[in-house]
Amino acid sequence: MSKPKVFEKPIGVTDYLPEAVERLRRIESNVLECMRRWGYREIITPTLEFYDTVGVASSTDDKKLFKLLDRWGTTLVMRSDMTAPIARVVASLLRNQPFPIRLSYHANVFRSIEEEAGRNSEFFQTGVELVGEGSPEADAEVIALAIASLKAAGVRKFRVAIGHAGFLNGLFEEALPGRVSDQESLKDRLFRRDYVGYREELRRLELSEKAVAELEGILRLRGGQEICEQALALSNSAETQGTIRYLCEVWDVLQAYDAVSDVLIDLTLTGDVNYYTGVTFEGYASDLGFPVLSGGRYDRLLGQFGRPAPATGFALKTNRILEYIAANGTAGGLEPHRILVVYTRAYREEALRYAATLRAKGDVSVTTMRVEEAEKEAVRAERASEYNTIVTFSDSGKEEHQA
Amino acid sequence: MSKPKVFEKPIGVTDYLPEAVERLRRIESNVLECMRRWGYREIITPTLEFYDTVGVASSTDDKKLFKLLDRWGTTLVMRSDMTAPIARVVASLLRNQPFPIRLSYHANVFRSIEEEAGRNSEFFQTGVELVGEGSPEADAEVIALAIASLKAAGVRKFRVAIGHAGFLNGLFEEALPGRVSDQESLKDRLFRRDYVGYREELRRLELSEKAVAELEGILRLRGGQEICEQALALSNSAETQGTIRYLCEVWDVLQAYDAVSDVLIDLTLTGDVNYYTGVTFEGYASDLGFPVLSGGRYDRLLGQFGRPAPATGFALKTNRILEYIAANGTAGGLEPHRILVVYTRAYREEALRYAATLRAKGDVSVTTMRVEEAEKEAVRAERASEYNTIVTFSDSGKEEHQA
Repeated sequence: MSKPKVFEKPIGVTDYLPEAVERLRRIESNVLECMRRWGYREIITPTLEFYDTVGVASSTDDKKLFKLLDRWGTTLVMRSDMTAPIARVVASLLRNQPFPIRLSYHANVFRSIEEEAGRNSEFFQTGVELVGEGSPEADAEVIALAIASLKAAGVRKFRVAIGHAGFLNGLFEEALPGRVSDQESLKDRLFRRDYVGYREELRRLELSEKAVAELEGILRLRGGQEICEQALALSNSAETQGTIRYLCEVWDVLQAYDAVSDVLIDLTLTGDVNYYTGVTFEGYASDLGFPVLSGGRYDRLLGQFGRPAPATGFALKTNRILEYIAANGTAGGLEPHRILVVYTRAYREEALRYAATLRAKGDVSVTTMRVEEAEKEAVRAERASEYNTIVTFSDSGKEEHQA
Repeated sequence: MSKPKVFEKPIGVTDYLPEAVERLRRIESNVLECMRRWGYREIITPTLEFYDTVGVASSTDDKKLFKLLDRWGTTLVMRSDMTAPIARVVASLLRNQPFPIRLSYHANVFRSIEEEAGRNSEFFQTGVELVGEGSPEADAEVIALAIASLKAAGVRKFRVAIGHAGFLNGLFEEALPGRVSDQESLKDRLFRRDYVGYREELRRLELSEKAVAELEGILRLRGGQEICEQALALSNSAETQGTIRYLCEVWDVLQAYDAVSDVLIDLTLTGDVNYYTGVTFEGYASDLGFPVLSGGRYDRLLGQFGRPAPATGFALKTNRILEYIAANGTAGGLEPHRILVVYTRAYREEALRYAATLRAKGDVSVTTMRVEEAEKEAVRAERASEYNTIVTFSDSGKEEHQA
């Protein structure tokens, strides 16, 4: 392979220049502040984890994990999400803290990607985990908080779709008992929103007419509360009906949160169904073709860390929100007043003390610059576009120029 | 080797629980805000870099770099500092931006460590780089900003020692011309502050009496401006005297910044002299035995990225400051008012709307919890220690209990 050039960085990683950092920081602090108001406290976990603990427990494909060996030959992974690390902490450092435990985070996560895809292999997630509550109130709380977080981030038009992993699992098991790979194949098409492929696959599977009708029927199960009624009619299994009734209860709580206008029920929503065990959800910004948040209930993960407990949570896809904000310009106006203090040698002390006074006052950015008497005019002209104000200390006294 | 247990994390990495995160976040935001007021804008670079570009340019020992292979067989490193990545950005994405360029950062960096040492292999640095200025004003600016940053971080008692890499290099070359490994051996002892070993080494080297006197003399070169005079007398080389005169000029500028009471000259200060080319500095908090910041001038690095330029900067050792703050308790009092809203099923809507109103108002943290009518008293008693206020909605009406 050819040697990387000195100005190159690896594929799929990003340099964020100051303007982007300001947007990202604003999203981060507004969202974390929102989560704090909902009783969630921030946690930071390490970038590197043991493959055998957090790596295998994460929902990320094994081949997408960044792996390395430590000096004792143990395999480490760069974290691919924050859910598994937080489960580890809840089961270890926080093992004596009673449930429910509410934690938030803003973190970079790592997933190795195909060069062709042009996607990030390092990206930011901002999210919460609510551990130790298995109630519809808990599901509704994280969904309502997800909505509040999107708003805090500056996303104006969005919709959150909610589904239930147990509903799809139950329905597929009813129609295709024991046929795991056929079930997976159907779920995979739903996951990729390939509804044409889903219908073709249904036909290929040679099911009864009734089963095909049922499984085609779920493609229409998207809308408001009325979808629950339709879904109840679609299946006779007590388990499947139980999941729907649970979803209806979550909807009720969301009404109490005044959140249903931002939500739709979508029973084709799979999330990663092998990982999620209950209600799942995804948020879409109207201007973007991909989700800006995803979440759901995962009641089996904590048990893998030795402290079995129900849990639910979500992560904002912060980089996508950053793209949205950059394109929609909804987070401007916080640039500080930029001041350049120019001085000649003899006025250095006066100029630096003046700069200190300005900095002490507040929301300004003050840069200082020593020049020769003869070049001060040229410097002012050259720098005029970068600053709101240029103040000069020289033999001509103190002069102030506004942009 | 034995398999890691599910609750374990790798050696040298840290979980930061909410209380520590709050302290860390306060340090981070106060310091970055301080840097912003001085005209420095924040940048974020990727965790992974090419070994052949940023890895070899960093000041970190090769064997301390965390390395991994990407899927095309190229060696990547987890960044070990932010100076080399920023040099890469200045020479590539920012190549058309005129000098001086002022950038700040808060980032985690990675250095593989010995198990025995009990030190961090992932830790935070908060710092700046000032690229494109080779003047004493630039050196003094970053030293004065380092002082302002320590104060913003909440460190009360500290001292910043300043030295000059060129002075030591010149003096050693004068006394031991061409004897590189003897020079390195002396510098190494100074770096480890092993002054006894330094004196022993001097005697072993069989130098002239005059040379030994000179090289022992530098151990006394610690103090205020008077040190410059003494240092000028210590050497006849024009180069060494030039470095001292430069340092005096930096001291003058620091006086204009009103910063000299926090500074002492220490000509035994080496930093990493193979990396630094001019003025170097280190900050010590009075209560800690190790530096809380280090920095200096590195005029050769940018050239390695194809845009030769003088540069200086520093990094706060943010984890050590966090330890200091935790031990000295100087950053408290920002905990939000914690409110628990308890409700029974029939009052859910009323309770959740009440919580929303509280959250909209401001600096509070509001947690909600559904209970059965019969258990509400017990829940209140159990949770009383965690919250400032508990508000209950139930058949008994709305009740408020203060901690």
